[in-house]
Amino acid sequence: MTAACASLTADCINPFVTSTVTVFRTMAGCELRCGKPYLVGETKGAHEISGVIGLSGKALGTVVLSLGGPVALRVTEAMLHELPAKIDSDVVDAVGELTNMIAGSAKAQLEHLQMSLSLPNVIVGHDHQIAFPGDVTPIGVPFDCSWGPVCVQFGLSEKGN
Amino acid sequence: MTAACASLTADCINPFVTSTVTVFRTMAGCELRCGKPYLVGETKGAHEISGVIGLSGKALGTVVLSLGGPVALRVTEAMLHELPAKIDSDVVDAVGELTNMIAGSAKAQLEHLQMSLSLPNVIVGHDHQIAFPGDVTPIGVPFDCSWGPVCVQFGLSEKGN
Repeated sequence: MTAACASLTADCINPFVTSTVTVFRTMAGCELRCGKPYLVGETKGAHEISGVIGLSGKALGTVVLSLGGPVALRVTEAMLHELPAKIDSDVVDAVGELTNMIAGSAKAQLEHLQMSLSLPNVIVGHDHQIAFPGDVTPIGVPFDCSWGPVCVQFGLSEKGN
Repeated sequence: MTAACASLTADCINPFVTSTVTVFRTMAGCELRCGKPYLVGETKGAHEISGVIGLSGKALGTVVLSLGGPVALRVTEAMLHELPAKIDSDVVDAVGELTNMIAGSAKAQLEHLQMSLSLPNVIVGHDHQIAFPGDVTPIGVPFDCSWGPVCVQFGLSEKGN
């Protein structure tokens, strides 16, 4: 990993924080409290449900939005006006849509990187871990809300690295 | 989902099958036997370790490579000349690299879609499930080898859908 890569990811903290806060407020009426950004280590497990989306352009990257189960259910209720009893396809679609919107909003603020989004995948599983490539230094930002924990992790690499 | 999207994904079966077989043969000396492609349903769980990578260009998509634990260890041994005792960062990197190569080789065969890759993420967890967006019809291809099961799933969507 080059210093430029680490700096590239670090430069994106603010766009990802503001995107996440705005998307949760707009889509789910949910006010997130932002914790301290951290370097993503190997052992950090994700929450129960995670959306993953890729970015490519002048930089390559991925964004992971990870939610505790209760947050995912309440966010889906806020978006669809019905509380799902468990993590079902509506919840999966809602998490995918939030992931897509957060990445889309962040990339709009990182216009100089001319990135476009891929499609979101959503991972469900109590003990899943999501690793980034060894040559990027992903950064995570923890959030908290009245429904439980939320986390956004992202890593970017200059093209060709 | 439009019929065009389903057809777009179906048209990609051969490029993804040949890419997967070639990458496993070249990188790990591993001969894969290809099973029957299937439509990915909600309840189909992934194997123990999965690589996910996004594609964007004239179409948007994602590719998931999922491996049973023993296959992941043996493939890593073939690539690094040392058998890992468990799923560690070497195995994660090997699975990410294979995912990247399979997606890269398939996209080269789908030149008309002018897609570029994002970075791979690797998911580890015994019972994880990986869902695609509700508006694509992902296709899975099961493979088998002497080390155990392998699966490739992919879904593509025309841009703007």
